[in-house]
Amino acid sequence: MESREQTRAVAASVSAAGERLFRGGAYKPRTSPYSFQGLAENGLKILAEVRQDFGLKIVTEAIDVESLDLVERYSDVIQIGARNMQNFSLLRRAGRSQRPVLLKRGIAATLDELLMAAEYILSEGNYNVILCERGIRTFTDHTRNTLDLSVIPAAQRLSHLPIIVDPSHGTGRREKVIPLSRAAIAVGADGLMIEVHNQPEMALSDGNQSIEPPEFEQLMSEIRQIALVLGRSLTTSSARTL
Amino acid sequence: MESREQTRAVAASVSAAGERLFRGGAYKPRTSPYSFQGLAENGLKILAEVRQDFGLKIVTEAIDVESLDLVERYSDVIQIGARNMQNFSLLRRAGRSQRPVLLKRGIAATLDELLMAAEYILSEGNYNVILCERGIRTFTDHTRNTLDLSVIPAAQRLSHLPIIVDPSHGTGRREKVIPLSRAAIAVGADGLMIEVHNQPEMALSDGNQSIEPPEFEQLMSEIRQIALVLGRSLTTSSARTL
Amino acid sequence: MESREQTRAVAASVSAAGERLFRGGAYKPRTSPYSFQGLAENGLKILAEVRQDFGLKIVTEAIDVESLDLVERYSDVIQIGARNMQNFSLLRRAGRSQRPVLLKRGIAATLDELLMAAEYILSEGNYNVILCERGIRTFTDHTRNTLDLSVIPAAQRLSHLPIIVDPSHGTGRREKVIPLSRAAIAVGADGLMIEVHNQPEMALSDGNQSIEPPEFEQLMSEIRQIALVLGRSLTTSSARTL
Amino acid sequence: MESREQTRAVAASVSAAGERLFRGGAYKPRTSPYSFQGLAENGLKILAEVRQDFGLKIVTEAIDVESLDLVERYSDVIQIGARNMQNFSLLRRAGRSQRPVLLKRGIAATLDELLMAAEYILSEGNYNVILCERGIRTFTDHTRNTLDLSVIPAAQRLSHLPIIVDPSHGTGRREKVIPLSRAAIAVGADGLMIEVHNQPEMALSDGNQSIEPPEFEQLMSEIRQIALVLGRSLTTSSARTL
Repeated sequence: MESREQTRAVAASVSAAGERLFRGGAYKPRTSPYSFQGLAENGLKILAEVRQDFGLKIVTEAIDVESLDLVERYSDVIQIGARNMQNFSLLRRAGRSQRPVLLKRGIAATLDELLMAAEYILSEGNYNVILCERGIRTFTDHTRNTLDLSVIPAAQRLSHLPIIVDPSHGTGRREKVIPLSRAAIAVGADGLMIEVHNQPEMALSDGNQSIEPPEFEQLMSEIRQIALVLGRSLTTSSARTL
Repeated sequence: MESREQTRAVAASVSAAGERLFRGGAYKPRTSPYSFQGLAENGLKILAEVRQDFGLKIVTEAIDVESLDLVERYSDVIQIGARNMQNFSLLRRAGRSQRPVLLKRGIAATLDELLMAAEYILSEGNYNVILCERGIRTFTDHTRNTLDLSVIPAAQRLSHLPIIVDPSHGTGRREKVIPLSRAAIAVGADGLMIEVHNQPEMALSDGNQSIEPPEFEQLMSEIRQIALVLGRSLTTSSARTL
Repeated sequence: MESREQTRAVAASVSAAGERLFRGGAYKPRTSPYSFQGLAENGLKILAEVRQDFGLKIVTEAIDVESLDLVERYSDVIQIGARNMQNFSLLRRAGRSQRPVLLKRGIAATLDELLMAAEYILSEGNYNVILCERGIRTFTDHTRNTLDLSVIPAAQRLSHLPIIVDPSHGTGRREKVIPLSRAAIAVGADGLMIEVHNQPEMALSDGNQSIEPPEFEQLMSEIRQIALVLGRSLTTSSARTL
Repeated sequence: MESREQTRAVAASVSAAGERLFRGGAYKPRTSPYSFQGLAENGLKILAEVRQDFGLKIVTEAIDVESLDLVERYSDVIQIGARNMQNFSLLRRAGRSQRPVLLKRGIAATLDELLMAAEYILSEGNYNVILCERGIRTFTDHTRNTLDLSVIPAAQRLSHLPIIVDPSHGTGRREKVIPLSRAAIAVGADGLMIEVHNQPEMALSDGNQSIEPPEFEQLMSEIRQIALVLGRSLTTSSARTL
């Protein structure tokens, strides 16, 4: 999220594509302290407006206990980012929330570590945890991260928790988002989280990995058909995030 | 390949599933010198028999210049394994062959290195090279290798060479082969190479990663449907390998 | 730290070996919520006692803003662990402290990311930051982590901040701690942080990577001599941590 | 090796520094078929001349069975490069040679795989195998490879074979060669293999990682002193390579 106008424009097209969940980043954990850090509480207020006006459920990231207090108030789903997957105080605090938690796998986390991180949330009494694969760090240089789709069936064998895929952060390259989204559904993921931007080339961050609304609509059509091959339906958004 | 009987039994079911290509390992590069090393030229003769009796085209691995001379005589496609991806003398020799070459990506090879390895073959005049993604080595421990499906669209942008996926070696675990095969087709791979064994629990090597003929037939049905979503057909086996 | 007695016993021998700094873990970030989590504020009180009785300066880890408030009161140096290297709220809070901060490299962090994490502390006005290499996650299986000693000269070229090495966490195996400690000094590290336990086989955590006091004393003698070869002295502990 | 003159100039200074072994690359396995591939047999003849004129023992790489036949004739030690660590036909051929074999660890090889590769040589009757750590491939970007010094004590626990370190290929950056060479000796390596070039900025390959003769002489002095701290002597070159 960069501004009220840009957020509303994306929300409108995402809503038109039939989506129910909307992710916007109000707090952005950035490698450098000098990069754009997000709109903070003002961003949360814009998201609350989007929820009301477009009937979308809101997912947004909490980066510490303080922001979690606010995110909990404005948002429907609390996201814990990859860098915070082992921020155990934050996980415990999320475990005491009434909101579902979307927990992203760390870039160097094993499956066991991801499940143990989820356990920090579950052990405090919050059983609504959605896992998210978003790419791991390897030696490869054709992609920012290596999306590990094999973790999906492995997680589904060991845990009852739903697991979704974020091919935008998982690849970091726009031209890979569409093929890897299809693959994520084909491997059996319970949902997708995709970056959509109405003007990716103008984005303040992550523009390289955002797709545009028309591409998004075509993708939705393809993945609906692939889900059908697996005997699954994407018409309800219960375990799906966008 | 372990014996004449076992090879014929698998060939019969693979042929019945409508496949055209059949991969059998006569020379097996093994980490330890004390492991089963394959049937060598006797294996090649069994493959030649299978070709004649079941009408299958044969793919088999050459592990050095000497075995390449034999493989070239008995086989339709010459496979260069992951460990030999940068065995430049072997690549050059394959480049002087009339046979198509299936070149597997090394477990720590970048995309550039894979394309440069192919260039060793092309530069000798053999333009029939098929690339194959078969998993890279990472820190993860839920899988033997990490199948890098994002390399498929990246390779297709940089090269005109077809690229297929080997989810059997790429994951090393039977229960992942089917979901990752579906994902490979969904991401846009030009084909699959899958280990099938009629009694995986009795296999002398790679039993953990082999699926049985009935599973294979069901998988073929699923991937045909997924290919259709992408506007592709799997009815010809020109760029597909089994 | 596991108890008052065990902590005092180790402090006594470490002090006798001529050390000035003492690290004890009062808060322990553990992969599982069901593992021993440390003695918390009681642990900090034991450390304060050790400081008074043995004349040692105290280093201990803060795992969140709340524990940092306490660590700051009882400890001389605040440690930020590898899992929290990109916990930006915690880094900012440490940047507003008067205490020196020991910042450990994340297991999948690049050098740039480590320096940017330090920048979060520096940008709040705290210039006393000590970097610490403690091993990265790779495919290797002979060691828990791969100690990246080549990062030491690289960091020293790009930054004026001192950088030390933790071979205990960096290897996870007792028998590697001594040779890698010698190597760390030989590569030019500004100090070492080593786990010492008077009864490693009884340790509640990290016993496999702890050395015993007599080994520690011999190691100190060897690294003093190696430091001399580089024209450096280890007699003052200004930039050294134990 | 690029020419007769350049080879003799380096040999002269290396000999003057008291070295006994000299490595020159006559066959160069290069990622691209269009890069400089070495002087081949002409290079071997120059090395034979250097042996006679400077009293140096020669180490050079064989890249296939054919070049091994020639290398065996001209050289004192046969090098098997990292890319060929699992070229099992080449290993077996080296195992039937009378010459000592220097076996470099592959960039993604585990310690077990390295020892098993050595076993291919030993099992043919050649017991003179020297292992060589030369860096592994990881996610790091401050260095070309990550030198894994922790493999030295691990290999020494599991095997009686000597193990040396190649910090030139292991780091790929000139400014890291000297500190990592000191560290390799301090960790207990049985020797070093270092690229020296009299005009690194003019080198046809690997110039970035070559040090100049005066730096080399100073380094030799430092590592002799570090070896003394460990109670070892570097005055005989039996297990040392340059």
